[in-house]
Amino acid sequence: MAEIPMQTVGPIKIVGSVLNEEILVPLATLESPLWPSTNRGAKVSRECGGITSSVVDDHMSRSIILEANNVDEAQKVVVSLKQERSELEAVVANTSRYAQLTDVHFQIVGCLIYIRLAMRTGDASGHNMVTQAAEAIQSWIMKTYSNLAYVSLSGNMCTDKKVSSINGILGRGKYVVCELTVSASTCKTILKTTPASIVELNVKKNLIGSTLSGGVFCANAHYANILLGFYLATGQDAANIVEGSQGITYAQCRGDDLYFSVTLPNVIVGSVGSGKHVPYADKNLELLGCRVEREPGENARRLAAICGATVLCGELSLMAALTNPGELMRAHRALERKET
Amino acid sequence: MAEIPMQTVGPIKIVGSVLNEEILVPLATLESPLWPSTNRGAKVSRECGGITSSVVDDHMSRSIILEANNVDEAQKVVVSLKQERSELEAVVANTSRYAQLTDVHFQIVGCLIYIRLAMRTGDASGHNMVTQAAEAIQSWIMKTYSNLAYVSLSGNMCTDKKVSSINGILGRGKYVVCELTVSASTCKTILKTTPASIVELNVKKNLIGSTLSGGVFCANAHYANILLGFYLATGQDAANIVEGSQGITYAQCRGDDLYFSVTLPNVIVGSVGSGKHVPYADKNLELLGCRVEREPGENARRLAAICGATVLCGELSLMAALTNPGELMRAHRALERKET
Amino acid sequence: MAEIPMQTVGPIKIVGSVLNEEILVPLATLESPLWPSTNRGAKVSRECGGITSSVVDDHMSRSIILEANNVDEAQKVVVSLKQERSELEAVVANTSRYAQLTDVHFQIVGCLIYIRLAMRTGDASGHNMVTQAAEAIQSWIMKTYSNLAYVSLSGNMCTDKKVSSINGILGRGKYVVCELTVSASTCKTILKTTPASIVELNVKKNLIGSTLSGGVFCANAHYANILLGFYLATGQDAANIVEGSQGITYAQCRGDDLYFSVTLPNVIVGSVGSGKHVPYADKNLELLGCRVEREPGENARRLAAICGATVLCGELSLMAALTNPGELMRAHRALERKET
Amino acid sequence: MAEIPMQTVGPIKIVGSVLNEEILVPLATLESPLWPSTNRGAKVSRECGGITSSVVDDHMSRSIILEANNVDEAQKVVVSLKQERSELEAVVANTSRYAQLTDVHFQIVGCLIYIRLAMRTGDASGHNMVTQAAEAIQSWIMKTYSNLAYVSLSGNMCTDKKVSSINGILGRGKYVVCELTVSASTCKTILKTTPASIVELNVKKNLIGSTLSGGVFCANAHYANILLGFYLATGQDAANIVEGSQGITYAQCRGDDLYFSVTLPNVIVGSVGSGKHVPYADKNLELLGCRVEREPGENARRLAAICGATVLCGELSLMAALTNPGELMRAHRALERKET
Repeated sequence: MAEIPMQTVGPIKIVGSVLNEEILVPLATLESPLWPSTNRGAKVSRECGGITSSVVDDHMSRSIILEANNVDEAQKVVVSLKQERSELEAVVANTSRYAQLTDVHFQIVGCLIYIRLAMRTGDASGHNMVTQAAEAIQSWIMKTYSNLAYVSLSGNMCTDKKVSSINGILGRGKYVVCELTVSASTCKTILKTTPASIVELNVKKNLIGSTLSGGVFCANAHYANILLGFYLATGQDAANIVEGSQGITYAQCRGDDLYFSVTLPNVIVGSVGSGKHVPYADKNLELLGCRVEREPGENARRLAAICGATVLCGELSLMAALTNPGELMRAHRALERKET
Repeated sequence: MAEIPMQTVGPIKIVGSVLNEEILVPLATLESPLWPSTNRGAKVSRECGGITSSVVDDHMSRSIILEANNVDEAQKVVVSLKQERSELEAVVANTSRYAQLTDVHFQIVGCLIYIRLAMRTGDASGHNMVTQAAEAIQSWIMKTYSNLAYVSLSGNMCTDKKVSSINGILGRGKYVVCELTVSASTCKTILKTTPASIVELNVKKNLIGSTLSGGVFCANAHYANILLGFYLATGQDAANIVEGSQGITYAQCRGDDLYFSVTLPNVIVGSVGSGKHVPYADKNLELLGCRVEREPGENARRLAAICGATVLCGELSLMAALTNPGELMRAHRALERKET
Repeated sequence: MAEIPMQTVGPIKIVGSVLNEEILVPLATLESPLWPSTNRGAKVSRECGGITSSVVDDHMSRSIILEANNVDEAQKVVVSLKQERSELEAVVANTSRYAQLTDVHFQIVGCLIYIRLAMRTGDASGHNMVTQAAEAIQSWIMKTYSNLAYVSLSGNMCTDKKVSSINGILGRGKYVVCELTVSASTCKTILKTTPASIVELNVKKNLIGSTLSGGVFCANAHYANILLGFYLATGQDAANIVEGSQGITYAQCRGDDLYFSVTLPNVIVGSVGSGKHVPYADKNLELLGCRVEREPGENARRLAAICGATVLCGELSLMAALTNPGELMRAHRALERKET
Repeated sequence: MAEIPMQTVGPIKIVGSVLNEEILVPLATLESPLWPSTNRGAKVSRECGGITSSVVDDHMSRSIILEANNVDEAQKVVVSLKQERSELEAVVANTSRYAQLTDVHFQIVGCLIYIRLAMRTGDASGHNMVTQAAEAIQSWIMKTYSNLAYVSLSGNMCTDKKVSSINGILGRGKYVVCELTVSASTCKTILKTTPASIVELNVKKNLIGSTLSGGVFCANAHYANILLGFYLATGQDAANIVEGSQGITYAQCRGDDLYFSVTLPNVIVGSVGSGKHVPYADKNLELLGCRVEREPGENARRLAAICGATVLCGELSLMAALTNPGELMRAHRALERKET
């Protein structure tokens, strides 16, 4: 067993249509400063009326590759498949009672056909569910269009655990947007900074700095750190922090207040399925209120909403720290000294 | 504690100038099919003379932001700093006996100055070491050029745990390249495939599919999965799988044989430092032979070389599976049934 | 007047459902080697049964930005607009008898709403038509949802004349795919190369080289050169070569033959509209057979199909040249000497 | 001849170390609104003390590919070539009295070696000069390391006329930064807007909108339009607007004033060489003062500095227009009506 230290942060105050609570959140990490940092954000959330957390979209994806003899055949198949949406939906529905086809995206490259399938997957994150459904779709297509050859059950247009734009544009997992309005006085007392400082830093670091790095969809400071802690604590496939790390932090001054938001188009979490039943994950998912009898998908969306709010806490705290020369290293050094 | 299941795979046969051994490698993961899959690749490595694993570059990076009053001032500072390389080197060397400045990269945006610092960091992965050195550099610059204002100690051009091109181009952590030549008969008996099938799939999936995803530096099938398992097992900051997931799989037919390679420009691992002294990591690093008295940096490079070879094993096995319609899901279903 | 030299290349033999002809194509360029190079490809097209040129998609895009007070409002508007597709279609149709809404793509970032609108635009390339329709949509939305504020009529998610992934993924202009099968003997006699050499070079240069450049959707050798010549000769907005330059060259060995294809997701051309009625463009569009009475859009798609085939000719010829050490510079030097 | 309409805009007031003048600039374009729009920016430049235009870097690039038998050989060659920098410099210098090697960048992928060469090229934009030098370098390397095989004289890591990050990070052509400070009253009278409106729009459109498009290094509104007009008017290889279109617009409020800057890392222009001696280009280059006896490279850098300032004029004007709902379309409609 790799035993990753785990602590609870919060409570984080979350509001909105998905949940309305103050909630404690477990984070498993070897980077111990993550806990006090996220805790500082949580304190702000309680002072300032709570973080609104919204799940604006929800589907898992898998892509397949087929090969035609030439572009004409490829084009005919694509045109025809666009007409056969209901057949495709039936094929998917047949593979699991939770799988529901929501989008089919095609690309043709010469004689090659790439198809990205998006689906609702109930409360599972859905890796296996979409693979199984994709396999069924691919078999059905090859039976229906006998001139096509199999190329791959996974075509890198999914895109699973790799950095791309397609997940940002078409979505993968839950698309979570969280926001918080922080008064100038809370900025000062808890975050030791000002709204204008945060807004400026966000432009210079997260937006322009990321552009200079040749980054794609990565205008944030450290979503990946918080996602890793959250995913490990709740039994997720933590390699999905790769696409999860993509997202946009946006802040603006509103009068004297700070409006601060995080947008995460690719939060891949489930409350059931592979990995979620190891004992510590089981317990954490229960504590997070994601094992309650609800409509399929609602527990997973609740989990995603909590995840997003936790990311906001950690992001806000680090951004605040970076506005103050020296603060970041002082904090790290102090913590490390304590640990020794 | 989040207790992540851990198993040993291999032994993997590794050759080359860094190490020449058959070695067992621990992987911690919730995705149980990863073990048998990587094991299949390890078996190939033993049949085929071993995986050559090379570390072709090695440095950690951090970026800072400063603000001038205008572009003229910004340009003058940059021109001047390029002359003061030895001063900058001294400032870095002064912060740690392991830190050694290897590259300074500048970008000017209007009146803003972005500086990416690359350093050798001994056997540590070096997150804290480069941050500390960057802080010292930033202080020194601000003292020397009093017209500059502090913007941020981290400028997203580092780039830490975010998806970018700069890490692929300038490198971050260890740049590892591994290769293996597999005979047609081993392809058939162990991998159930042919060299030509692997070569073709690599083009259609890893190269073209990734292009269609709007991906950057991500022409591979699943480096992230194996990296996560390796990083968790050895006490690394596993959020670095974000940049680690970037890399290029390249295969070619050589006569009847398969030449198969993985190129990972951003393997961020250390054998000492934060996280490496939790008990299970300590033990694993010792088993991997990375706690031996060596020149500073050699233990970490050994670790990176093993990491790359492990990635090759997992990548080769999945690629082989994907050439066979149905094999991937059959394997997953069989394993899950066993687990129930 | 800037007087750009113009010559006719070809005839290029084009087959497929859009057109079936041998056709002469004008190219305006200051890079004189472009003509003989494209001519070589044209000769291959005549020897080998013609280039199949397909237009697999067709729509122009523009994006708008609106601002809500918070994410909840933003989400409600997006949910509601998805229901009001027919109203949006009516608003668009009302701005021009050729404009027809085909796709609406939403992204929410905090309280900001980004909407990318895709439309059929008849035979015009459609820059102004989509801007006008986008303006009408934006006005309609702001009237319907009075809580929204105007941000911008163009939101960089269009994306016009900038490098992005969204145009490759969702398309912009005509999505053109062209292919040709070249016998080994024609490869040898006209192209001085072999099918295998072209296939290998494509992997190493266009696919892997582009990956190393941190490129997005740019797995080709020089689409931009040929597009510029074609756009200038036919009165197009030549700045659209920026997105036009994106695309994928794919080649494979088929028995002894070479299968060679170019895929251009973003060919932005029109046979009418702004710029197309300067005298030389008028004449060229007529010579290309794109001023015939046809269904709206068919002349523009014919133009795009010819454009794609011309790109294939130039791409194939340069790729062949690059397989031979020394050939490229020899050709350039010979041409320059002649010009002197 | 393709006869592209050409008009002169300005005078643009430019200050800084490269030039200090009010200068008229020719733009050739089929998009007629570009002239009045750029003229508006030029008027602002004269009202507000001038645009500071700096050329912060200058070199052209070409990349080559070589193949070793395995990664060990590849690594040895790269290590060795890094020692032989002076030999490489001599090889380059031998191909032209203007060519001067400034940077060599290596990447290894399996057994493949990619080398990006950067050079000073005097007053030429340098396409042919770097190709010729790259050919000489490649020959020299193959002679020196007989175990290497030729792959390609151009490896897509250059990157010529394709969209990448490498040109933004390592530079290609001239790296130009221009800035202007505009008083609130000039913002109001000439630009019909406020500093804050421009600053906000830049964040929402150029920075966040571009991020949502999956764009790389393209945080601007329409650099490509102005570059095309400038390149066509001065005999440049206009296909280089592809990389030229990349760049970052950055604005900030300074007290009541607007600080506005454009950063263009890839301006590829020359005052001599292929295309610059067609009559209209010859004349325009003389009018721009780029045919004066100066140190090699100074005429080309002057041209680049003027180009950047022109881009700033057009960018500022469009950004201002977009802050006002309806203005953009009103302007286009008015111009088109006049033209009819």
